[in-house]
Amino acid sequence: MSENRLAAQLRFIVEADRLKTVLRRTWLTDGSRRENSAEHSWHLALMAVLLSDHAPAGSDLSRVVRMLLVHDVVEIDAGDTFAYDAGANRDRAAREQAAADRLFGLLPPDQAVELRSLWDEFEAGETPDARFALALDRLQPLLQNVHSDGGTWRTHGVTREQVLERMRPIEAVSAEVWRYVEGVIDRVWAVGWLRDTQDP
Amino acid sequence: MSENRLAAQLRFIVEADRLKTVLRRTWLTDGSRRENSAEHSWHLALMAVLLSDHAPAGSDLSRVVRMLLVHDVVEIDAGDTFAYDAGANRDRAAREQAAADRLFGLLPPDQAVELRSLWDEFEAGETPDARFALALDRLQPLLQNVHSDGGTWRTHGVTREQVLERMRPIEAVSAEVWRYVEGVIDRVWAVGWLRDTQDP
Repeated sequence: MSENRLAAQLRFIVEADRLKTVLRRTWLTDGSRRENSAEHSWHLALMAVLLSDHAPAGSDLSRVVRMLLVHDVVEIDAGDTFAYDAGANRDRAAREQAAADRLFGLLPPDQAVELRSLWDEFEAGETPDARFALALDRLQPLLQNVHSDGGTWRTHGVTREQVLERMRPIEAVSAEVWRYVEGVIDRVWAVGWLRDTQDP
Repeated sequence: MSENRLAAQLRFIVEADRLKTVLRRTWLTDGSRRENSAEHSWHLALMAVLLSDHAPAGSDLSRVVRMLLVHDVVEIDAGDTFAYDAGANRDRAAREQAAADRLFGLLPPDQAVELRSLWDEFEAGETPDARFALALDRLQPLLQNVHSDGGTWRTHGVTREQVLERMRPIEAVSAEVWRYVEGVIDRVWAVGWLRDTQDP
């Protein structure tokens, strides 16, 4: 194996360290600070292992885990875009494509292709692996918000309808997890952590 | 599937969030703050995927990744123990066993057994999967230290011999990565980031 191959892999690994400085809107459950995208990615990969009972037919757990490990890497260049910020979401795709070109381009060609295609597949959200990964990426911030007194929902005045809409990818993969999610949304709405759609 | 099973899994997932607040001695490469054990675990799992060329014969990448995702979870209760702190390392095993009992005990029994045995296997460090995981767990802080002006090596006055000894698990899995590590240690020693063993 060539030393150049190892050097390219280590360059990417060192660059990946920067994902730890990309902050999401979500709070840690102890309310001490916002979550970063690297620790979020770890949490999702762990969730995939634990909730594999709920993966759709045809999905491959080890691919889902690899997909989740790289799903946010583009944020090193493109930053995290808040789900409920329509403005920032307009140019998100273009920023993230450029980031994917540069970042995955650091890798040896075969690995650049493999990881880029995992990321493309996640973004398209159509295969069983991507649908499961996407569902987990929606469920995790819901858990964080529930366990940090409403978190970003309250800070940003998010409505019940917006959360239900955002969580739909969960409904598409697991009836049981969806029942849990609906129950949570009912409870947090009842205590006033979500705005009603009728509010001004 | 029972709602109780899902409830147990979600309890563990929410508890796991606390690993994001466990600080290691290692610094981020931008020097902005110390690294936490959750983002460290993500970094190692990503490294396993990228450096799988160097995994020893008989190892299974998807098991190594799962092992790395849970290898530090016990630190939620037991805290991170600095590698070069002999005193704190004396009761580390007992603290971590108690933590493993409580934390993995939150899970449904089959998953408690699966994850606990992955963690036990990592700690024993004897199987091909565990040896690869351990080598990555040594390589990652070396990369962090090199790219943060010597990081913990300089802060804690670590010697060249201590680092060489600490990195031995890498030598056991890959001659090529070991050559890289030796080269790095030579260079950082030459610039004075590591103390000489002869120093007072």
